[in-house]
Amino acid sequence: MILTVTLNTALDITYRVPRLRPHASHRVTEVTERPGGKGINVARVLAALGHHTTVTGFAGGVTGTVVRELLAEDTDTDTGGGRITDALVPIAGTTRRTLGVVDTASGDTTQLNETGPAVTSTEWAAFMDAYAGLLRGASAVALCGSLPPGVPVGTYAQLIREARAVGVPTLLDTSGEPLRRGVAARPDIVKPNAEELAGLTGSTEPLRAARDARRRGARAVAASLGADGLLAITAQGAWRAAPPERLAGNPTGAGDAAVAGLLSGLVDEAPWPERMARAVALSAAAVRAPVAGEFDRAVYAELLDRVEVTEHPSAA
Amino acid sequence: MILTVTLNTALDITYRVPRLRPHASHRVTEVTERPGGKGINVARVLAALGHHTTVTGFAGGVTGTVVRELLAEDTDTDTGGGRITDALVPIAGTTRRTLGVVDTASGDTTQLNETGPAVTSTEWAAFMDAYAGLLRGASAVALCGSLPPGVPVGTYAQLIREARAVGVPTLLDTSGEPLRRGVAARPDIVKPNAEELAGLTGSTEPLRAARDARRRGARAVAASLGADGLLAITAQGAWRAAPPERLAGNPTGAGDAAVAGLLSGLVDEAPWPERMARAVALSAAAVRAPVAGEFDRAVYAELLDRVEVTEHPSAA
Repeated sequence: MILTVTLNTALDITYRVPRLRPHASHRVTEVTERPGGKGINVARVLAALGHHTTVTGFAGGVTGTVVRELLAEDTDTDTGGGRITDALVPIAGTTRRTLGVVDTASGDTTQLNETGPAVTSTEWAAFMDAYAGLLRGASAVALCGSLPPGVPVGTYAQLIREARAVGVPTLLDTSGEPLRRGVAARPDIVKPNAEELAGLTGSTEPLRAARDARRRGARAVAASLGADGLLAITAQGAWRAAPPERLAGNPTGAGDAAVAGLLSGLVDEAPWPERMARAVALSAAAVRAPVAGEFDRAVYAELLDRVEVTEHPSAA
Repeated sequence: MILTVTLNTALDITYRVPRLRPHASHRVTEVTERPGGKGINVARVLAALGHHTTVTGFAGGVTGTVVRELLAEDTDTDTGGGRITDALVPIAGTTRRTLGVVDTASGDTTQLNETGPAVTSTEWAAFMDAYAGLLRGASAVALCGSLPPGVPVGTYAQLIREARAVGVPTLLDTSGEPLRRGVAARPDIVKPNAEELAGLTGSTEPLRAARDARRRGARAVAASLGADGLLAITAQGAWRAAPPERLAGNPTGAGDAAVAGLLSGLVDEAPWPERMARAVALSAAAVRAPVAGEFDRAVYAELLDRVEVTEHPSAA
């Protein structure tokens, strides 16, 4: 079982309107709701790839209930062979919503994100208990996204240390101070984008910044460089992986799909070039999916062998 | 007890963002939720004025549950002496949301309204049963807002006829074909705005249009003319009422406050000039309230005696 942690779970709502005009009134022509938060998105892709996945984090209030109901529906209708187990910890606060307003004329999305509910110290203790139990059955754990109010900034560092203590490899995908502290706790993989990497290291040159991130503690760095693909610096070597062509579409969820590809390769004990091919092909297939957070299976299957993985001229 | 009917109930959500920029990502700095739909807004003002009020219509799904919880909180904290009784009829569909995004830099609001859930014929029959029972205890009934999918367009006409059959006066506040059909069923008062009146009669001249609306069946027409106040054409005479000065603020909910003023005057058997003074003062006090759907009690008290009501030179 792969464990994904989403401390700032969300109900992702998408509104479609013919044309978004500030200060006007709009009739919403279509409403969709999905369980959201980066770790949950990662879990959905992993399940679709056939991996049994458990999601934990927090859920509360009426939106938390909807998130859990939608997760259960996902599991019921899944055709990828995988399964998502809901191990979210209940909280008194209400799970946040995120709203994407899609202008159907231009295809552009305007995003409105609520902040998460505050987590009490009792709820936090309940989560730590649950996490320790879940680690015992996990082949890998992904720690994804921002921290809700009330959760200590060093949280990811603590979760990484607990996982290492029981021999479970970790992947960290966050930003800012939680990323800085988490990297220092020596996660097996960090998956920053170029901006997060620059924020961590102060360098906007990805190769230099990725090396710096390794020196700060990360055992491997897989940096997502948008349409340019992925750069990995690991103990086994350094590679770049790029899609065979640029694909137009919605980049939301592409990073989460890449995390799922890396984790899938990790638990399958695939070599790094294969892990990167999966990550880049999934990322491109997510860009091409009509709904954020999903991926186009046909695009994935078609791209997987065509991703160009090249060993990086300068060693790690 | 005053009965208000809201067939297209809503959960009104307000997001505050520092500046709304289409196609960008925003952090929502404040979220508020209120029970919404025109009849519910009217009931809240009536309760604040000290009238016992019952709300009916439909509520379903998680948003319906939140609407009912918020209504119950309103009742618990009411200080106006009135009380709101929840007689909403449960449905399988989910109550719609409306979202107002307030740009705190400009104060302007961008509105996104979901459409209502479809109502089944069984649910409609349950509502008609409930309505017949509620009419028995009602001193007046207000029929407010749009119709959800699945509800016949002649619905308001039917509800007006049923109320008249048991001697309960009716106020109708809707638009389009439901207004046209409703007016033909001879409601005691219709409260259109200038646009709705023009849609009904084809005339953009309010006095002419209001007379036409009476010929079509309405016993009295109280037309809201925005900042210009109210025009009433009744069997007792014709009047204009205007606030003593123009007040800046949020016009959302001003029409619902006017409906509450007219109903309050109706059940108190106040003469028309007094009803109009209440409607105009409440409307202005709603414009001045910081939150849509509320009204500023101090502004109301201060304006009530200062509203200028003049008999209209031409008789009805």
